Amino acid sequence: MNPDRAILTGHCADKKGLVAAITEWISDNGGNILHLDQHVDPATDHFFIRVEWHLEGFVHGRETIAHQFQTDVAGRIGLDASIRFTSDRLRMALFVSRLGHCLWDILARCESGEWNVEVPLIISNHPDFEGTAQQFGVPFHVIPITAETKADQERRELELLAEHNVDFIVLCRYMQVLSADFAAQYPNRIINIHHSFLPAFAGAKPYHRAHERGVKLIGATAHYVTLDLDEGPIIEQDTARVSHRDAVQDMVRLGKDLEKIVLSRAIFLHLNSQVIVHGNRTVVFT
Amino acid sequence: MNPDRAILTGHCADKKGLVAAITEWISDNGGNILHLDQHVDPATDHFFIRVEWHLEGFVHGRETIAHQFQTDVAGRIGLDASIRFTSDRLRMALFVSRLGHCLWDILARCESGEWNVEVPLIISNHPDFEGTAQQFGVPFHVIPITAETKADQERRELELLAEHNVDFIVLCRYMQVLSADFAAQYPNRIINIHHSFLPAFAGAKPYHRAHERGVKLIGATAHYVTLDLDEGPIIEQDTARVSHRDAVQDMVRLGKDLEKIVLSRAIFLHLNSQVIVHGNRTVVFT
Amino acid sequence: MNPDRAILTGHCADKKGLVAAITEWISDNGGNILHLDQHVDPATDHFFIRVEWHLEGFVHGRETIAHQFQTDVAGRIGLDASIRFTSDRLRMALFVSRLGHCLWDILARCESGEWNVEVPLIISNHPDFEGTAQQFGVPFHVIPITAETKADQERRELELLAEHNVDFIVLCRYMQVLSADFAAQYPNRIINIHHSFLPAFAGAKPYHRAHERGVKLIGATAHYVTLDLDEGPIIEQDTARVSHRDAVQDMVRLGKDLEKIVLSRAIFLHLNSQVIVHGNRTVVFT
Amino acid sequence: MNPDRAILTGHCADKKGLVAAITEWISDNGGNILHLDQHVDPATDHFFIRVEWHLEGFVHGRETIAHQFQTDVAGRIGLDASIRFTSDRLRMALFVSRLGHCLWDILARCESGEWNVEVPLIISNHPDFEGTAQQFGVPFHVIPITAETKADQERRELELLAEHNVDFIVLCRYMQVLSADFAAQYPNRIINIHHSFLPAFAGAKPYHRAHERGVKLIGATAHYVTLDLDEGPIIEQDTARVSHRDAVQDMVRLGKDLEKIVLSRAIFLHLNSQVIVHGNRTVVFT
Repeated sequence: MNPDRAILTGHCADKKGLVAAITEWISDNGGNILHLDQHVDPATDHFFIRVEWHLEGFVHGRETIAHQFQTDVAGRIGLDASIRFTSDRLRMALFVSRLGHCLWDILARCESGEWNVEVPLIISNHPDFEGTAQQFGVPFHVIPITAETKADQERRELELLAEHNVDFIVLCRYMQVLSADFAAQYPNRIINIHHSFLPAFAGAKPYHRAHERGVKLIGATAHYVTLDLDEGPIIEQDTARVSHRDAVQDMVRLGKDLEKIVLSRAIFLHLNSQVIVHGNRTVVFT
Repeated sequence: MNPDRAILTGHCADKKGLVAAITEWISDNGGNILHLDQHVDPATDHFFIRVEWHLEGFVHGRETIAHQFQTDVAGRIGLDASIRFTSDRLRMALFVSRLGHCLWDILARCESGEWNVEVPLIISNHPDFEGTAQQFGVPFHVIPITAETKADQERRELELLAEHNVDFIVLCRYMQVLSADFAAQYPNRIINIHHSFLPAFAGAKPYHRAHERGVKLIGATAHYVTLDLDEGPIIEQDTARVSHRDAVQDMVRLGKDLEKIVLSRAIFLHLNSQVIVHGNRTVVFT
Repeated sequence: MNPDRAILTGHCADKKGLVAAITEWISDNGGNILHLDQHVDPATDHFFIRVEWHLEGFVHGRETIAHQFQTDVAGRIGLDASIRFTSDRLRMALFVSRLGHCLWDILARCESGEWNVEVPLIISNHPDFEGTAQQFGVPFHVIPITAETKADQERRELELLAEHNVDFIVLCRYMQVLSADFAAQYPNRIINIHHSFLPAFAGAKPYHRAHERGVKLIGATAHYVTLDLDEGPIIEQDTARVSHRDAVQDMVRLGKDLEKIVLSRAIFLHLNSQVIVHGNRTVVFT
Repeated sequence: MNPDRAILTGHCADKKGLVAAITEWISDNGGNILHLDQHVDPATDHFFIRVEWHLEGFVHGRETIAHQFQTDVAGRIGLDASIRFTSDRLRMALFVSRLGHCLWDILARCESGEWNVEVPLIISNHPDFEGTAQQFGVPFHVIPITAETKADQERRELELLAEHNVDFIVLCRYMQVLSADFAAQYPNRIINIHHSFLPAFAGAKPYHRAHERGVKLIGATAHYVTLDLDEGPIIEQDTARVSHRDAVQDMVRLGKDLEKIVLSRAIFLHLNSQVIVHGNRTVVFT
């Protein structure tokens, strides 16, 4: 049996018959649907769908499915669609600075085979994790950045990413702000982890400000990077309890666990095409 | 505009074309789907679906939809289906003994219009909440139960429930075990709240046993009542943190909040036909 | 046996010997300590303590304890201390507008004896919950407020509160902003519930703004009221998961459960003298 | 300044004056208390205390503190006490079998300096993680175990542990049951992680049984190992939400995050002497 499955994600203005049109096409071509999630946002009358079907016995081959679906269905109903396959092994670049907890967590998952993903390179503005990268056999590129060198260095980074056919980027507590130009090259394909429950404590030093405000929970937010810092579409968030006994450095320590778990959940959702971005919000089919 | 919506829930052995068959029928008859959730359990190859569509412009009327769908689709594909309408106001009977927190919480929600539900009667084996029932204008029936009177008293209860056209029953910390005969009259329509994270601490005095075992979390479980005590299909569960500082009576106090929230979530899911029971497990479409 | 216990809470600049001085005094006077919680904030070198001891066999009587402790210990070590007794039945005034979920929840707890508290009156700027108040036998005062009448009406409220010897006030989704003058009458004795995870979405319509931002969690915050709106010391917070399926009205519904639980936890902490305010932050001994 | 601090933990039958006796001694000898947590279990009238004080200016040196306290205070009041120092670097042995998520997580924390701990060796009944151990520069001993070799192999393990002056052992999903003899060598010094919310699903294959029962939450439990399998004193637990969409292998994946976080929290608590075991329960001062 062919265990490969196709995953269709799409969205468009809502109208009658969309689900029927899509599922008939799958069924008429011999596909058996495993999961279907559909949502109409009542505020905007916008339609979202994610369908996963077995390719065993399906009429169209991997190479022609997307084109055929576009011709037969998506074009006609105006669906902004994309199709991929569970056997696709996406290529994920990691950016890191000087805090390694997210990097370690991600590399350990990759090593253990928890995710179907390739890590072709790690980029850092500091040399700190060169040894770690070596342990895991991943090429490590140190690209320091200053205000003066930023444009050039980002160009170098983009070249490296292109060379390695990178599908998406994960900022593992990478402490440089990406330029608008850079961000525009990978729309909805750069995932950042912010160490607060956004929109609270956007910007710098969120744990210091959380401590000062005396909050009883700290948070972490994984989001896609857009031109506006800390304002991109949120993929996943979580919070953890703190008390007066927790100084800033305790919040930092407790926050690390939150950050790595929230970031890894977001990566998993992205890898499985469970996230659809629309405007500045996400639909996350779980 | 007709704001009423139909909700179809169903399940059957999986095969190709099920979603297409169902959604084509809705679409061909002029329905616009608002939500569709579908699931195939890979372990048993069993198919589950919940669809909600607008009745505005739908060809069939409320009275004939179910029959027509059975004839056109369900019979042919073998779907065990049921259809109801968001405007239906279900009739919920409450059973209570001597602890009132769940009862108060439910009655306050009903009073505030949070749920689209009718409470035609409260049944208790004790007179304690007669005044509370009066406050909310709900008829209250005291039906004491002993080993000798149980069969007779349950018969009386069943008569009352039938008289009041009760759709489902909620046991709000009702401390009597229902007989198998009684439970069989309302399959998957009696919701109980157990004050532990089942299957831990099934049976009596769960907080005492939780305290003795030194657990760091207490739990609550809402489930449908079946012939086997505390073994029915689980609808909803949650846990809350406790510490060595919490004596049994503190667990009881903290547990009350857990119990009322978990039970109310389960009632809400039931009211919206978000729960499908299969074997001893539930599919909960959220 | 006398089951009454004394609770001492206090804070001052840290120095050596504080705990010893306090506990020696209790021990020398025949008290047996049941709980002691102590904390030194390393950032400010400030000392906080809460001690609870059995009065059985204690040398000093209820009336003289506070004075004696002040003379013997607090004055000497500079401790800002207060002593009360577990048998004290505090008097809590409730303020409400048009949303009743917190009010119901609190009144049901009081009725069931969950808390050792008296509710001498409810004040509202709307008549909506007059019937509810009657059900629970609590005097209800409708005091409508406009920009013009605000000063006069608040004066009337303060008179009522004084008449009823109110110890503290709970704003149960009370939709009027208290004046600085009013707030200053009950420092750290007015508890408000804000329907967001502060400091996110301070101000009006937090659920609308949470929905717009696409957050994956909603929150609630109980805090003491100060002159700065939504900026007072936080007592308790919690969050709950939402998804793209939750429209604003679903967030409102889900948020109600969060608000009532968080507010009730804060009230319980206040009732047990578990909260010490220092600057704009709280130490919460749990 | 000497940043080192002493941590005293102790317990005994409750009586008047215990806190005073202990804190007077610290204060009289020039110590300044940073944290003090005390608890009397009302069910058993047993007293528990944890005190942490600055050694700057303390009369007694590290070597004599424990003896002096025993002579001056503990002997007299009958306190079962132990004293250690925040500068002590405990030596932790790791046992692992074929699942690496906890091992990776722990080694990454050690490498990053998150904990003040030494890992002198890893012991496994399989060679799988030899490479991982090498990456982190930790000696790795493969000690396969069969029913026949168990007694001999455990003897070898105990020798290795003794040679390396191991303070405590962490079972990182180690799939061998330790013999009673082995467990008795390290009382309250072997931490295990069980992949369920104990006492639910004690024993083998908890995720399979959780799936079968249809629970809505999975859990993980860190506990000290005693002679009774899965029955030792619980240090920490947590739960995570699952749904009908989660097959057993999804529960396994989601459970890994829970297991590693819960185990690491337990190790942190143990490292900081925040756990006192009494009977089969723990007091965890947080």
